[in-house]
Amino acid sequence: MMRGVRVQKLTGERRVAALQSLPDWSEVSGRDAISRVLKFKDFNVAFAFMTRVAMKAERMDHHPEWFNVYNRVDITLATHECGGLSERDVELAAFIDANAKVLGATL
Amino acid sequence: MMRGVRVQKLTGERRVAALQSLPDWSEVSGRDAISRVLKFKDFNVAFAFMTRVAMKAERMDHHPEWFNVYNRVDITLATHECGGLSERDVELAAFIDANAKVLGATL
Amino acid sequence: MMRGVRVQKLTGERRVAALQSLPDWSEVSGRDAISRVLKFKDFNVAFAFMTRVAMKAERMDHHPEWFNVYNRVDITLATHECGGLSERDVELAAFIDANAKVLGATL
Amino acid sequence: MMRGVRVQKLTGERRVAALQSLPDWSEVSGRDAISRVLKFKDFNVAFAFMTRVAMKAERMDHHPEWFNVYNRVDITLATHECGGLSERDVELAAFIDANAKVLGATL
Repeated sequence: MMRGVRVQKLTGERRVAALQSLPDWSEVSGRDAISRVLKFKDFNVAFAFMTRVAMKAERMDHHPEWFNVYNRVDITLATHECGGLSERDVELAAFIDANAKVLGATL
Repeated sequence: MMRGVRVQKLTGERRVAALQSLPDWSEVSGRDAISRVLKFKDFNVAFAFMTRVAMKAERMDHHPEWFNVYNRVDITLATHECGGLSERDVELAAFIDANAKVLGATL
Repeated sequence: MMRGVRVQKLTGERRVAALQSLPDWSEVSGRDAISRVLKFKDFNVAFAFMTRVAMKAERMDHHPEWFNVYNRVDITLATHECGGLSERDVELAAFIDANAKVLGATL
Repeated sequence: MMRGVRVQKLTGERRVAALQSLPDWSEVSGRDAISRVLKFKDFNVAFAFMTRVAMKAERMDHHPEWFNVYNRVDITLATHECGGLSERDVELAAFIDANAKVLGATL
């Protein structure tokens, strides 16, 4: 099953390579998850960014944990089904990075 | 100034009356703010709810602090300008309550 | 292929039954498509409705043609791949009807 | 009144200057309005763009007439209150142009 493979917990060298491909993300302490803080120009941009991620999340059926206040968005990614990081987190993180850049995010 | 009055910190009887008008909200411990947790059917509804609140927030120029994961939305309201609760938080909370109900929120 | 079947053009009795299940939709003249006009209380509700449909559309990979001005949304559904109506239009129309009702649409 | 001035119909040299500042917009035939067609990479970007414009529109209390299908957005701007173009259309058009560019719109 394609889905089965994609939600397998990343371990060993595959996990190391995944984290190296996402230099703007940090490992969450005490939990197998990654997080990133983003700042945009204002709320208008921040929420449009969140809308992009929301549509991608629905398409992937894989949703972020996120906090927002005004121009700031804190995002944590992990895969419920495997209790850790999977390929789906890597894909969603890469989407977030590409679109945050387009929308002028700092941090 | 209309805006000046609306961002004044609520105190005394006006604060008590405001909190009584918002029975679904709790006072945040250690901070002059209120919060509410909402659960919707799924992410689709939760994010449409957030979009309604986002547009209202832009119109009021008064933004929530909020956390979302899948069908859950945790919201905290306070007014930066006065370091506590103001009429604007009461207005935004009432908007949130009315629209959460329409969209079938529980909790 | 599941997708293949779902984008087949509806004809004969299946088409008749589909249209009967969607009494709020009209056939578009000169084209194998259906349309519906919706009015909401204001733009805030109309756009939140559109956000729900947008996320559903991404999930289905099946998108509406729609026009909006203020509280009004005109929607046309058809399936590009078959040049007419398919099961996917029926599914999206049913989603639209259910959510328009929740959000208090008239017309 | 600030609002009164901003919804006055633009005429004469002020109208000419406004149109010259918006080279990507066309005058609508038979009506005092302007329009622009935009194409984005996909629906995800197109709808995020629409969300930015929706929040700006709520803030200005000035809403577009727009049509969308997949990656395409057709926008018409005019001011109901004056039956023609006003400063508000110029402001909204400039916001649209700036954000369409950021999001990689073509046309």
